[in-house]
Amino acid sequence: MTRYQILSTESNDTDGSKDDNGRGVVGWALGLIKSYWKPVLFILSVGLNIFLGYYLKDLNKESPKCILSKVIKEKPLENDTILLIWLWPFGNHFDLNSCSSKFNIDGCYLTADRDLYSKAHGVLINHRDIKTDLSNLPTQPRPFFQKWIWMHFESPQNTRRLEGLENLFNVTINYRRDADIVLREQIMFKSDGSEDEIFPQVLDKKDKLVCWIVSNWNDNHKRVKYYNELKQHIDIYALGRHFGKAIGDDEYKKTLTRCKFYLSFENTDGHYDYMTEKLFNPLKLGSVPVALGAPRYIYERFVPKDAFIHIDDFSSPKELAEHLLSLDKNVTEYKKYFLWRKHFDIKSVDYPEEHACRTCQYIRNHKYYQVFVNLNKWYFGGI
Amino acid sequence: MTRYQILSTESNDTDGSKDDNGRGVVGWALGLIKSYWKPVLFILSVGLNIFLGYYLKDLNKESPKCILSKVIKEKPLENDTILLIWLWPFGNHFDLNSCSSKFNIDGCYLTADRDLYSKAHGVLINHRDIKTDLSNLPTQPRPFFQKWIWMHFESPQNTRRLEGLENLFNVTINYRRDADIVLREQIMFKSDGSEDEIFPQVLDKKDKLVCWIVSNWNDNHKRVKYYNELKQHIDIYALGRHFGKAIGDDEYKKTLTRCKFYLSFENTDGHYDYMTEKLFNPLKLGSVPVALGAPRYIYERFVPKDAFIHIDDFSSPKELAEHLLSLDKNVTEYKKYFLWRKHFDIKSVDYPEEHACRTCQYIRNHKYYQVFVNLNKWYFGGI
Repeated sequence: MTRYQILSTESNDTDGSKDDNGRGVVGWALGLIKSYWKPVLFILSVGLNIFLGYYLKDLNKESPKCILSKVIKEKPLENDTILLIWLWPFGNHFDLNSCSSKFNIDGCYLTADRDLYSKAHGVLINHRDIKTDLSNLPTQPRPFFQKWIWMHFESPQNTRRLEGLENLFNVTINYRRDADIVLREQIMFKSDGSEDEIFPQVLDKKDKLVCWIVSNWNDNHKRVKYYNELKQHIDIYALGRHFGKAIGDDEYKKTLTRCKFYLSFENTDGHYDYMTEKLFNPLKLGSVPVALGAPRYIYERFVPKDAFIHIDDFSSPKELAEHLLSLDKNVTEYKKYFLWRKHFDIKSVDYPEEHACRTCQYIRNHKYYQVFVNLNKWYFGGI
Repeated sequence: MTRYQILSTESNDTDGSKDDNGRGVVGWALGLIKSYWKPVLFILSVGLNIFLGYYLKDLNKESPKCILSKVIKEKPLENDTILLIWLWPFGNHFDLNSCSSKFNIDGCYLTADRDLYSKAHGVLINHRDIKTDLSNLPTQPRPFFQKWIWMHFESPQNTRRLEGLENLFNVTINYRRDADIVLREQIMFKSDGSEDEIFPQVLDKKDKLVCWIVSNWNDNHKRVKYYNELKQHIDIYALGRHFGKAIGDDEYKKTLTRCKFYLSFENTDGHYDYMTEKLFNPLKLGSVPVALGAPRYIYERFVPKDAFIHIDDFSSPKELAEHLLSLDKNVTEYKKYFLWRKHFDIKSVDYPEEHACRTCQYIRNHKYYQVFVNLNKWYFGGI
């Protein structure tokens, strides 16, 4: 009633405030309103109420994406899945309200408030933040519906093995394809059919043949031995802390763009599904990666086989060098390493927000009993 | 304009068709309409349009659950994920329109129409339906965005190994926890806090101690050897084709309800994550399973450890028999095997509809490049 009266009054006021001499578009519209105020009023009300109906529906929904995602939830809604961030990963805080707006995941309530422990459906724990004696893990009884999630993204070789993790966690989130939640850089399908714009631009800028940026140097690492032999046969533009040339993020990106090939040499080798930004950054920035790490077939689980070179494709560093030198003289052959870009893009991951949101999504979709009984054997035992 | 005029006319007609003497609720309402037709008209329009807005939104949505899930989709919507059922699993047709209504999975278009091959995001292929020479698989080029899904639910021991499956499929759906899509019976969390009603009822009906129903008999199977020794020490009520007592589904269920313990003896042993209805049916129907198959720790990945007995808990069949006999005399101890029912229910799977829908959901949520490079090694090699 009240809203109707206000609308009605406004129409009449407007109607009376102008005469027909004040023409032009506004005058014409006002004239129309004067003559047809009832139907116009109705049409306006239809429009207004379709609009209201649209948003009122959202208010009734479990996770009102359009409105509430922009608002910090003070407390969980009744059907929300609650994920408790037990320890901030590496001590860094992050936005707990981005699941809906950034990742299109609804129905999640992320919190770092330990008072919600007994209500939490999931408790996210980053391996690197666990004390050796596990003394900073929850000590309260675990509700039957609560799952503890083990999050970790380092290779086993760079991971401290903690005793007591068997039968403690329920769910794993890791780069391995056999984890419960798999999260890693991916080669996404392009959906819009857009052509690759990076390659033609960056090809002109390539004034380096082979590049490598490295900080962590260890004479016993396979990659160091391989590099030492490779550089006998081909010129390598080497940067990074080890070479006394530490570079920032901008220069890192520029460098990758300038190089025809980049040595994507992982600091651990052979680990199941382990491949990092050392591979995905050059793929993204238009340098052809030369992979050293896991065997080629592991790479091919995630990356088109003609998008990269693998050291195992050659019997020696000398042979690899010869191949790279021949590609330097054969633009047609070199360009073939970029054919994948016609259909694919690189999707990076947004640590740790995406990890927390994907974890919540998994917990929400898997409301059943599950235990990860043999975590250490799985991660360190090589299966 | 037209809708406004019709509504307006109807109001006036109603107004003029009755006089104030025709009282009662209807007359009173009509009187109100007569006096306040403008605001009433507006309120009606508000209500109508909130209603319209609500459903019009659904019509704009990618998958209008409220309306279209009840309608068979003639063709895929623009944003639908298309899953092509290349071969009907085991030759059996199933409902292709149940993803939204039965599994709450929206945005899927399942089809068996091979003319849609070039548009399909996923092609579902059941292992058992593949010809040995792979001649009944698609021969057209695979679009870059299309994934082939290998579906299989038998243990490796009961699976024909086909050559040529490496680098052919992109995604696996299987009972193993390390498959891309894991689908199996699960111990679901109860959400409504309902008490377990089955147990008190079935306890009164238990007139058998240990039962076994078996058709597939092989003297070399571990389960047959174990049974032959176990029956020396305890009375076993044995049914099934092997014992000349084939039973139907109803009698099967009744029998399980009558037995305190059921021999959940798998026909293959030790296989990674392999456990079947031989375990989950007695759990559901109120008989305590005695498990033989995978090691106990594999069972404990999916089932609370105090919900079942495992033959490895005892050094011999004789010891197991002694334990079962002691539980027969100790109701308090026996009842402890049912404590899990306070919080959990058994969720079975709806083959093959749920499998197809979950596959479509996965394809929809994983729009990136992935290849299953070593299927035979994974499935038969024991990793």
